[in-house]
Amino acid sequence: MQDKFIEGTKLDLGITILTEQEIIDFAKAFDPLYFHTDKEAAKKSIFKTLVASGPHLFTLVHRNKWIPLFGDTVLAGLGVNNWKFIQPVYPNQEIHSSVTLVKVKINEEKQHAAVTWQYEFKDQKGEMVQCLEMTVLHKIN
Amino acid sequence: MQDKFIEGTKLDLGITILTEQEIIDFAKAFDPLYFHTDKEAAKKSIFKTLVASGPHLFTLVHRNKWIPLFGDTVLAGLGVNNWKFIQPVYPNQEIHSSVTLVKVKINEEKQHAAVTWQYEFKDQKGEMVQCLEMTVLHKIN
Repeated sequence: MQDKFIEGTKLDLGITILTEQEIIDFAKAFDPLYFHTDKEAAKKSIFKTLVASGPHLFTLVHRNKWIPLFGDTVLAGLGVNNWKFIQPVYPNQEIHSSVTLVKVKINEEKQHAAVTWQYEFKDQKGEMVQCLEMTVLHKIN
Repeated sequence: MQDKFIEGTKLDLGITILTEQEIIDFAKAFDPLYFHTDKEAAKKSIFKTLVASGPHLFTLVHRNKWIPLFGDTVLAGLGVNNWKFIQPVYPNQEIHSSVTLVKVKINEEKQHAAVTWQYEFKDQKGEMVQCLEMTVLHKIN
């Protein structure tokens, strides 16, 4: 029996902060909309200020927090689901991230597990700003 | 009536090719798994060769093809759904991309539309390698 991937386990991925410059640089490369790249122009957006590109937060947390923990077991990515941009992410805002193993489907014969990880990103009040489910095929031995 | 966002419209986004170096550079920055970053080591992966990071293809096509067409109407991103990594994407492989407006929900009073765009990425045989749905809030005037 594998004991690395237990359904229901929740992991705290700590606090992440995106600076203004990081938000601008990421958006210029991948999502060059004015309310992600231009502080002055962003005042005229529905957000009234600069906000992070939707994928920026997950991209950073996944790379810096999740991959160091689980990257060495990854066989392949399978998909992403229910990625909801609920609230904007502002420069210098403290965002608390966690990930929960919501589904673990083990194939003992092939020695792998299809794991659905639910990411949650919350603001300082504990309110959800983003969430998503990511399904990954992991080796279990 | 707005005429920019018509449910059922399908747009051809042409051919995209990811080079080996682009795959490695993207993965080193955002998804540093050995089968995305190390050509030799990747031979031991289930893919038997270097493959692109899952989000790489969509990230590039969205930035280079979709944003120039629709970026000026974007009010906010709402979410991403059913992103399926069906087949690996190889270096120098020709991938054909298209996007279809599968759902258009217009709010005349607020002069905006919540549009669900279905991206499809197919190989040279016409077989699906990836797909996803992205929902975006657009201004309609």
